[in-house]
Amino acid sequence: MTSSHTSPGRLPKALAFDIFGTVVDWHGGIAREAATVAARHGIDGDWPAFANDWRAGYMPAMDKVRRGELPWRHIDTLHRMILDAIVARHGLDGLSDAERDHLNRAWHRLPPWPDTVPGLLRLKRRFVIATLSNGNFSLLTEMARHAGLPWDCIISAELFGHYKPDPETYLGCARLLDIAPAELMMVACHPGDLRAARANGLLTAYVRRPFERGASTVLPDVEEGEFDVLADDFEQLADRLAAA
Amino acid sequence: MTSSHTSPGRLPKALAFDIFGTVVDWHGGIAREAATVAARHGIDGDWPAFANDWRAGYMPAMDKVRRGELPWRHIDTLHRMILDAIVARHGLDGLSDAERDHLNRAWHRLPPWPDTVPGLLRLKRRFVIATLSNGNFSLLTEMARHAGLPWDCIISAELFGHYKPDPETYLGCARLLDIAPAELMMVACHPGDLRAARANGLLTAYVRRPFERGASTVLPDVEEGEFDVLADDFEQLADRLAAA
Repeated sequence: MTSSHTSPGRLPKALAFDIFGTVVDWHGGIAREAATVAARHGIDGDWPAFANDWRAGYMPAMDKVRRGELPWRHIDTLHRMILDAIVARHGLDGLSDAERDHLNRAWHRLPPWPDTVPGLLRLKRRFVIATLSNGNFSLLTEMARHAGLPWDCIISAELFGHYKPDPETYLGCARLLDIAPAELMMVACHPGDLRAARANGLLTAYVRRPFERGASTVLPDVEEGEFDVLADDFEQLADRLAAA
Repeated sequence: MTSSHTSPGRLPKALAFDIFGTVVDWHGGIAREAATVAARHGIDGDWPAFANDWRAGYMPAMDKVRRGELPWRHIDTLHRMILDAIVARHGLDGLSDAERDHLNRAWHRLPPWPDTVPGLLRLKRRFVIATLSNGNFSLLTEMARHAGLPWDCIISAELFGHYKPDPETYLGCARLLDIAPAELMMVACHPGDLRAARANGLLTAYVRRPFERGASTVLPDVEEGEFDVLADDFEQLADRLAAA
């Protein structure tokens, strides 16, 4: 894949952003917070691997909800279930309940990528910018305060009782913004999210995040022309959408 | 009523703001936009009275939805139904469909009160600040962009399929923010909204808006001690909540 795409044929009215990996660096943020609490207890470990382990439980847990094997649970709850399942493997099973709660909320405190805030500020001048994440509403709200993300509004899978890639999320986002699906552009570093968005009539922008999983990141395969825009970061996305 | 109240006994974690009248000046905004379109057609009229007429249809229309006499309709649709019913009375029945649509969207472009933005910026440093309005989600999102309202998130009755003062709105707002009702403070210039919020366990702040209906505003009766905080504007609200 190259990033030589120019502007898309049609411009959206609003942009909906995937969050974990696309907007914020969950890998770096989780690894650092785990290292901090571990150091307090004198525990050694591979905290980048811990971050990847925690994240690896995310899709299977959501899929259980999507298939109806679990009732609706929001991401804070799913994150905590996964955390409790992996602490022993990483020597963190001595953490108190309060420490686990604090670590679980590290997902609310994830750092933005360096291009995130300047890119969003440019895009916001021209387009409505919203989250469209499986993260729960309060998580996304607190993250925005913490990381200085200038959203026009917070839209979460929680509002629809469905997780991405269920159609209800993409169509529900367009409905809340009172625009047609074709007037909404999904922005993500995950092709699966974008393919589902496209199947529901949305425009799509793929942003490469070569450090999503740290040094071990393998970039996904994306076909030339598969998405409306390809960009290396949010500044380039703003360039390609001709935003100020 | 006096405004001599000091800080409340308990501080909230988040503030939920009523919008029309409390945050923005619907009366002035609608009167000005009506005057503008009328002038283009050479039509004379009493545009402050037109604004009050339009607003007077709001509660009855929502009450029809609340009683189940109308299926769920969002405020843009209800505003347009009311507008179509009152144009003839004000000599505006010659407006085209596009002009009516534009005028209907004046509710998205309402101006903030002078204290609104500086007060919200102070309050935001200490508390999560959210809308909790019967206005639809896209209306509130566009209004925030237009008026520079620095919300942490947009919460609308539309998310719950219930209009205030139904309990689902106040409790749903606390649930989305992941806090207890007692950790959420409703801010409004309408005692009825605050009484319903209080009945559902929320803290309450009454803000006087002596020009909500223009020169003809009659301030509602509020009993001493009925609400947790009384304030003359958002700057005084920030003072009383000891916000930066």
